Formats: sequence, structure tokens, C-alpha cells
Amino acid sequence: MRGVVLHAPGDVRVEDREEPRITAPTDAVIRLTATCVCGSDLWPYRGIEEVDGPAPMGHEYVGVVEEVGGDVRNVRPGQFVVGSFFASDNTCEICRAGYQSSCVHRVPVGSLGAQAQYLRVPLADGTLVATPGMPDDDLVPSLLAASDVLGTGWFAAVAAEVGPGRTAAVVGDGAVGLLGVLAAARLGAERIIAMSRHEPRQRLAREFGATDVVTERGDEGVARVKDLTGGLGAHSVIEAVGTQQSMMQAIRSTRPGGHVGYVGVTHDVALPGMELFSSHVHLHGGPAPVRRFLPELVDLVLDRRIDPGKVFDLTLPLDRAAEGYAAMDERRAVKTLLTP
Amino acid sequence: MRGVVLHAPGDVRVEDREEPRITAPTDAVIRLTATCVCGSDLWPYRGIEEVDGPAPMGHEYVGVVEEVGGDVRNVRPGQFVVGSFFASDNTCEICRAGYQSSCVHRVPVGSLGAQAQYLRVPLADGTLVATPGMPDDDLVPSLLAASDVLGTGWFAAVAAEVGPGRTAAVVGDGAVGLLGVLAAARLGAERIIAMSRHEPRQRLAREFGATDVVTERGDEGVARVKDLTGGLGAHSVIEAVGTQQSMMQAIRSTRPGGHVGYVGVTHDVALPGMELFSSHVHLHGGPAPVRRFLPELVDLVLDRRIDPGKVFDLTLPLDRAAEGYAAMDERRAVKTLLTP
Repeated sequence: MRGVVLHAPGDVRVEDREEPRITAPTDAVIRLTATCVCGSDLWPYRGIEEVDGPAPMGHEYVGVVEEVGGDVRNVRPGQFVVGSFFASDNTCEICRAGYQSSCVHRVPVGSLGAQAQYLRVPLADGTLVATPGMPDDDLVPSLLAASDVLGTGWFAAVAAEVGPGRTAAVVGDGAVGLLGVLAAARLGAERIIAMSRHEPRQRLAREFGATDVVTERGDEGVARVKDLTGGLGAHSVIEAVGTQQSMMQAIRSTRPGGHVGYVGVTHDVALPGMELFSSHVHLHGGPAPVRRFLPELVDLVLDRRIDPGKVFDLTLPLDRAAEGYAAMDERRAVKTLLTP
Repeated sequence: MRGVVLHAPGDVRVEDREEPRITAPTDAVIRLTATCVCGSDLWPYRGIEEVDGPAPMGHEYVGVVEEVGGDVRNVRPGQFVVGSFFASDNTCEICRAGYQSSCVHRVPVGSLGAQAQYLRVPLADGTLVATPGMPDDDLVPSLLAASDVLGTGWFAAVAAEVGPGRTAAVVGDGAVGLLGVLAAARLGAERIIAMSRHEPRQRLAREFGATDVVTERGDEGVARVKDLTGGLGAHSVIEAVGTQQSMMQAIRSTRPGGHVGYVGVTHDVALPGMELFSSHVHLHGGPAPVRRFLPELVDLVLDRRIDPGKVFDLTLPLDRAAEGYAAMDERRAVKTLLTP
């Protein structure tokens, strides 16, 4: 089968890879309908994360079940399924508490390579959510979004305790930040401040529910958020970048007692203890437990109440994955969908 | 009047200071019944925090109202009152959200010097809680504890979301950590792991409700907490020290999705972003909004349902404050009560 392999920073190739097979009775193999490039894929692509030999890429996926292992009960061949980027048993104590991405048996799907034609999904019963029937083609991008980028934006909004009567601010106008805006709107935020300097992304943010746009960054951005919130800061701030500057911007934009939900994979970040102590914020985040939200998100998509697939502004055949990485790297595309 | 002044690290003197007067119509002046030395007073005493010229010390206090400004409505001369270490209006949006120690009009009582015979309390209506009558003498230490050290341990337990069915762990066996144990017990924790190497403090921890004691520190301490919690870590961890080691010990002792409540004043702490991200913990803390809890804590003390005053294992007249600092610095005393 064809699959994306990263050989070195900037060196994305689509190659023949061995077709995955059932290796454990809890596995499923799915034929991918769509996959995509994640902002976090850009870290090794840019050489900021080390690339350890040729590595299969991709962890976002929807597809049709081809085969299941002998112990799989919840999905069967022929079903359309959405998964998340950590396989999880969904039964351990951590999963039951809603943290499936820290499941005691978790397997990172990224290590298996979902930018491909087929994917082996471990712990299929815990990981995959089947749709009631075969979804309409135009819903596929939104279902694919649910598998990571929407689920991650949603978790950020939940972690930031967005809710009615609250003002949310969103640091980061990538796909996760934009879907954080969508999540904040669905969760009832009274006011949503999107922080973005890019006009097309601002427009999408407004479409997803942003009521205000702040173009300033860093301390100036913080000052603008304070201006908009009676000098206090937002109740809930979503951090969707993962740099020192964006984390500090998020923390400083939050009022005392408010909540920061951070989902940008943190690189070279060190949070100063005394400032955090004085800030009085709640800090929560990490790899989104997408599985917690998947059933609800899939329903919202199938009912056409949300359209997160709009973040895909570039669609390419899998074989042209390298172009998709480059477009995102150069910020010419928000997010690239790949069709295997 | 007599009052404690820190001249330089290790140089605590009790001197004649000018008696405080009403300077704003929202002030009260109280005659102190008891005051004490805080763990945080040891930071400048040890030279870890800079000492900026001779500085009046102390921010924990109970006493009797001598005089009130023209706008004070909630307390009157002759009443016994308990205050907290930040004066707060208790009416602003931040106060109403329960973060009085970040009140938009807050005044640090430490800057006024509560280790003295008299104290001016700004924003008296928002800051002070009067008892129904004059409390019994034996309750004074516990009421004094409510003004900071109990309120701080209590906030840590609330921030760590201690509750029924949960396992709490407490990093730090100073007075705040010990009262974090007490708070965890009152809040219904099923199991409370006190981390302490000091036998008398272990005993007090058990008296306050600890079910387990872990003597190991750092990674060994973390491993012991994991052993005691099915390999997962505690649901709720109270951090009551404020060093890099104690913060990391707290974070690492917490299960994914669990909560760290940190109240140790953080010195030279830098939290590594990637580890925090991967940990999946909730992090909340800062200067305890003691005022939020004061009415409840005062009631618990007056009803003799808790006895937090037990953390005072040394009582000295105010004039011997220097001995009290030294005893705490050398860990000969958990906490020193001073009688003006």
C-alpha cells in the first residue's frame, strides 16, 4: 500500500509500505477514506522535533473496517468508523475518568502511520466509533476533523471551562484554534475573542462564532484582551500553539480564578513558577482525550449542526502529501486533507 | 507599640513602631490577641527573598476591633475578628468569584505588619469576619490558624478537588501541609497520604486524618504514592512547599486527569512544558483566597469540630519573636504563635 514516510526534516515521501494485518485479537484494520496533516506533524517536518530514521506519519483517520480480530465486539467489517490519535481500551480507570489519551494501555496511532491507504487500529473496541450508516461524502471532512483537530479544540474549550456567561479567548489561529472557537460557541460562551493576524483565518473564526478579533500578539495582545474584559482578562483561554510566547499570552490573558485549556504541543516551554502562582489561573491540557467526545461530535456532524471540515482548505491525493506539508508549513493552507 | 521588624536575613527585632491609625474610612484598627510566624516569613529570613530595608513582618492575625472608619458597616469596636493576609473588598467581580486574594483593590497585610500589638486593616468590611461573641481562650490558636495556614491548606485541598472516593496526597509536612491533611479529611477524602520524614509531624498528620505516611522524597516518594494507588497516582495532590523538587513531586504523584493544588510560594520554579503537557494533570493554586473559606472555618472552630491550632507547638510573647523565627528555621517548631 501507499503511505507517507518522513525521512528527514522537509523530506516527506509517499512510498510502498507493507499492508497492515491483524496482530492482536483486539485489532481492526481499516481502509482509510480520508486522512490529513496535523499541525503537530510540522514539528518533526521543521526539524524542531528529532526525526528518528524514516518514520510513518499521520494519526487522523476515518475509514471503513476491513477486518477485525477475534475479540472485537463493537465494530464489524463494512462499518464506517472514526478513531482518535491514541488507541485506548476505554475501560481502564483512567479512560473511565475521561482521559483515554492517557489510557494505561494506550498506543499512539502516529507510530502506525495513518497517512496511508490502510491502518491497523489497536484496541479497536475502545478506540473506534462507528457511524449508524455510510455517511454522505460531504460529511467526511468533518468526521475526519472529529478524529483529532475538532476533538482537540473541543477538549481545550472544556479544559478552559468555557460556558454560558463566560468570555473565551483563543490563542492560535491554526485549525485547532479555529475549532476551539467553534467549540466555545457550541459550549455557550457569551463572547469569543479570536487572536489572529490572518484575514482568511479571522473570517473562518467569525464564521465559527468569534465575536471579537484581536490582531496583536504577546503583551499587546494581552492588553487588548484585558481592554475587552473590563481590565480583568477572559474567564476561559484556549492555548493552541505550544510555544513559550503563546503559553504566557494565554496565562496572562486569563483573569484570576479563570481557566487556561492548553493543547498546543509544548516545545521548549518552561512556566515561571512565581508568575503562575500569582496568576491564580487554572491550568489544564495535554493530548486531547478525543475519545471522550467522539460520540457527541460525530452526532453533531451527522446532524449537520457543526461543520468543522471547513478547516480543510486544501485537498490532495495521498501521493501528493509532500505538497500538503509544504503548504501548511508556509501557512498557505490551514489544514490539508489527503485522499488515499 | 511593639512590633516585629526584619532588618536583614536572620536579623529579627521587636521594636517600638508607630501605632496605626485609621487612614481611610474603610479601615479598622484592631488590637491583636494573637499573631504568628508563617513559613513564608522564613524566605526573607533565610535571605532567599530579598529584604528591602527594615520591614515590618507578619500577616496572620486575630484580635479585637478598637476603632473603625466612617464607612465600615460589618464590624464594630469590641468585636473579636479574624482576617486574612490580603485585605479585599469582597465585592468586586474577582472577589465574588471566590478569589479575594486577587481582589482588584487588594492590600497585602504583610506590608502593614501583623506581628505587632495593633494592626490597621484596610477594607475592613470585606476582610474581617467577626465571631458571634468573645471566643474561649483555648480557641484562639485555631481561629488564628484560620487566618492563613488553615485557610491555605483548605484552599489547596479545594484546588486539588479532594472529595469522597478520592485519594489525596500531601507534599510538605509544614503547618500548611498538615492542615491540608485536615482539610482533605473534612472534605471527605477516602485515603490521605502524608509525605513526611519527621516523626512528630507524621503523628500530627495521622491525628488530622492521614491514613498513610510516605517517608521517601522525590522520585522515590512518587513511586511509593504510585504503589499505594494501583500504579496510577493520587487523584488529588496538595503541594505545600514551593520548590522545584516539591512541585515536580506533586505533579508526578498525580494520576492523569487528577488535580494538583499548590500553595507553597514558588521560588525558582520552572515547570517543564512537555512534562506538564504529558502529565494530564490539572494545576491550580496561588495565594489562598482565605476570605472565601473564613466564615465556614470560623464556624468549624467555634463548634469545636476541628482543632487546627494544634500546629502551634511553640508559644512566645511577641518580644521573643526572634526565638520563634529561629525555632521554625531550624525545624525545631512547626509554627510559632506570638502573644502581643
